[in-house]
Amino acid sequence: MADLITALEAHDIRFPTSQHLDGSDALNPEPDYSAAYAVLRTSGDEEGYGLAFTVGRGNEVQVAAIRALEPLVVGLDVQEVLGNLGAFSRLLTGDSQLRWLGPHKGVVHMAAAAVVNAAWDLFGRREGLPVWRLLSRMSPEQLVDLVDFRYLRDALTPEEALAILRRAAPGRQEREEQLLRTGYPAYTTTPGWLGYSDDKLLRLSKEAVADGFTQIKLKVGANREDDVRRMALAREAVGADIRIAVDSNQAWGVQEAIEWMRLLAPHNPYWIEEPTSPDDILGHAAVRRAVAPIKVATGEHCHNQVMFKQLLQADAIDVLQMDASRVAGVTENVAILLLAAKFGVPVCPHAGGVGLCEMVQHLSMFDYVAVSGSTEDRTIEYVDHLHEHFEDPVVVRNGRYAAPLSPGLGARLLPQSAADHRFPDGPVWRNA
Amino acid sequence: MADLITALEAHDIRFPTSQHLDGSDALNPEPDYSAAYAVLRTSGDEEGYGLAFTVGRGNEVQVAAIRALEPLVVGLDVQEVLGNLGAFSRLLTGDSQLRWLGPHKGVVHMAAAAVVNAAWDLFGRREGLPVWRLLSRMSPEQLVDLVDFRYLRDALTPEEALAILRRAAPGRQEREEQLLRTGYPAYTTTPGWLGYSDDKLLRLSKEAVADGFTQIKLKVGANREDDVRRMALAREAVGADIRIAVDSNQAWGVQEAIEWMRLLAPHNPYWIEEPTSPDDILGHAAVRRAVAPIKVATGEHCHNQVMFKQLLQADAIDVLQMDASRVAGVTENVAILLLAAKFGVPVCPHAGGVGLCEMVQHLSMFDYVAVSGSTEDRTIEYVDHLHEHFEDPVVVRNGRYAAPLSPGLGARLLPQSAADHRFPDGPVWRNA
Repeated sequence: MADLITALEAHDIRFPTSQHLDGSDALNPEPDYSAAYAVLRTSGDEEGYGLAFTVGRGNEVQVAAIRALEPLVVGLDVQEVLGNLGAFSRLLTGDSQLRWLGPHKGVVHMAAAAVVNAAWDLFGRREGLPVWRLLSRMSPEQLVDLVDFRYLRDALTPEEALAILRRAAPGRQEREEQLLRTGYPAYTTTPGWLGYSDDKLLRLSKEAVADGFTQIKLKVGANREDDVRRMALAREAVGADIRIAVDSNQAWGVQEAIEWMRLLAPHNPYWIEEPTSPDDILGHAAVRRAVAPIKVATGEHCHNQVMFKQLLQADAIDVLQMDASRVAGVTENVAILLLAAKFGVPVCPHAGGVGLCEMVQHLSMFDYVAVSGSTEDRTIEYVDHLHEHFEDPVVVRNGRYAAPLSPGLGARLLPQSAADHRFPDGPVWRNA
Repeated sequence: MADLITALEAHDIRFPTSQHLDGSDALNPEPDYSAAYAVLRTSGDEEGYGLAFTVGRGNEVQVAAIRALEPLVVGLDVQEVLGNLGAFSRLLTGDSQLRWLGPHKGVVHMAAAAVVNAAWDLFGRREGLPVWRLLSRMSPEQLVDLVDFRYLRDALTPEEALAILRRAAPGRQEREEQLLRTGYPAYTTTPGWLGYSDDKLLRLSKEAVADGFTQIKLKVGANREDDVRRMALAREAVGADIRIAVDSNQAWGVQEAIEWMRLLAPHNPYWIEEPTSPDDILGHAAVRRAVAPIKVATGEHCHNQVMFKQLLQADAIDVLQMDASRVAGVTENVAILLLAAKFGVPVCPHAGGVGLCEMVQHLSMFDYVAVSGSTEDRTIEYVDHLHEHFEDPVVVRNGRYAAPLSPGLGARLLPQSAADHRFPDGPVWRNA
């Protein structure tokens, strides 16, 4: 019997988060966290779910970009797709006409992310495995086959990638069992949104420590005095042993970043995240040289593996923050994990948003089991918003992500949530 | 009386160029040259016309992105917009929700390009001046006000930009008159499309020289033996004194580019264009070090001024190929011309496509009059396709662009052409 992809649906789902300034930062003062939600339907029982995260306006453009991929995927044989997800990614990102709109960046690349992730979700559901375990059971050769090396070979060869994966192979089972027992370290951004009052910042910072987190993050970059005061307050609230990362969300030029961080340095910030334009590789390198030992972190807007390659080649970052749906999904993130391992840079994924925690935990756990083999200085961002809308919400306890057990990638919305938040005609928006 | 922007229209216009393999290259084997065509309507008599160029599929996504800008521009006061086009660009590229889809790259940035260029076109029409002359009459201070320096200051300060413009100010009138007399140098890509036979390549190369061109360009990158043979044929056809540039359209990795160019080197290629990923700044620098004295050129996919800044900082390019609608239009291209002047790198714009020649000639002519003050090693790409569809088509004679005299930026399609090629319901596509 035919086993085909029968449909690719794209839905415009938006949550009115701007009402409470959740998610507010220097460049995103009033986000409405949104998802261009992709559903792959097949002639079999299972479906696959993926999404591209956006912050409101323009989500309809993201939906249009997913729809543009429909002719490429409908009618494909499911077994062939799942048996060669590297080729499937290249199909979506390499279409000779669509690639002009990127290439490999922005709306079209995030559309590929949504569909690639939906395919991985489908794969996990078919195999009855969460994607982190599915990946962790693939051979080094199968994993290397996922990678598009065209623009990577000057930094990472297939042979080097294979060596990294083979080195980590012996301990896979032990680390998988350990993750099932103890989970993976998390840090929390919940206390530090820019729109929160000092009182709320203080209260939430103390709660974070009480909840077992050993790292929190504050948004900075709008006002120098405010940032110094908030940083001092947070440091006082959590004590000297808790890491406080700060995040300017691209607010600064290079020199401005260096000057601003000198003001915050007395309060011992752990990393500065997105100090400047996400495209400015050389700028990040200059900031890193100037602000050490404060670490430099970036990645949520790093649009593809070629950019990550250069951030690593230029010694521009101490912390690599991959995102589940900015680059072309699980497949490209496997390449990025291998690059990070080659350069010895820890990966601390970006999360929050809509479904990003649910998806990205699979990548960090796979990294621990089968790539880097380490959780040292590695931690997954955690934000406690919107998880209630997912079929398999993340579980974070004592500052750690519990290893997910349900099959798939975790991005399936509850049908009622998807219906309620459909833009512009779902009840939440009709009544707004 | 109110003087307002009353509408922003976006139209999906496509030309079936894939039927003849015009425009075929290593990564674009079958393009249907297309435009997401933007029309700014006002309460006055004039309108403004701009476009984002694409190569077919996905043009509807580009159109959706232009539509997403409509709420930002409709209702604005025309005088205020035209009086501060720097602020207008930042409005379009800085929207806190839309910028997530970039930032400053891909579909949303090209949408800004279409609208910014439409505003410049409107400005020119109101002033009765072609945009190159309009720009050339702005004061150094007004020009510097156009630039968004947020992420540029480590390479170019406002003071440095002002000094560059003041240095060129004395000769402006003389150079403007000279352009009106003799035009601006062009080179032609017409002979070298990858899909053309050897005979057609030979014939068109000889015709190009007979037509007065001193530089031609060949597409390469699909097959090594074919490229060596075609390069040898073209060299034989044009002789030793004509520059032959080659363009791989991103086909190679870094090492592959270096090896491939060693094979072509005996035939003295003038530049290698887009040797690898357009995002790979460090890769371009490595190729440049290895293939000198062959020059390295890139830019048609360089998505914003931060990327151009780094290409210059990293000594990665000999030739900067700005594009009229990849970055955010005339406004961002003024910043890029200033960066190029600061680093002493000549600008040879990308053109061809749909309306790119018509628009980009204004930038090179403004550069000559008011920025670099030189045409040395500078030349505008010319491709002789699709000009017949424009109200003010470029005029290229004896290998030079004649200075355009009509008011505006040149991107207005003939109404009949726009109607005929509307996708998918115009007669050209209904009958395809």
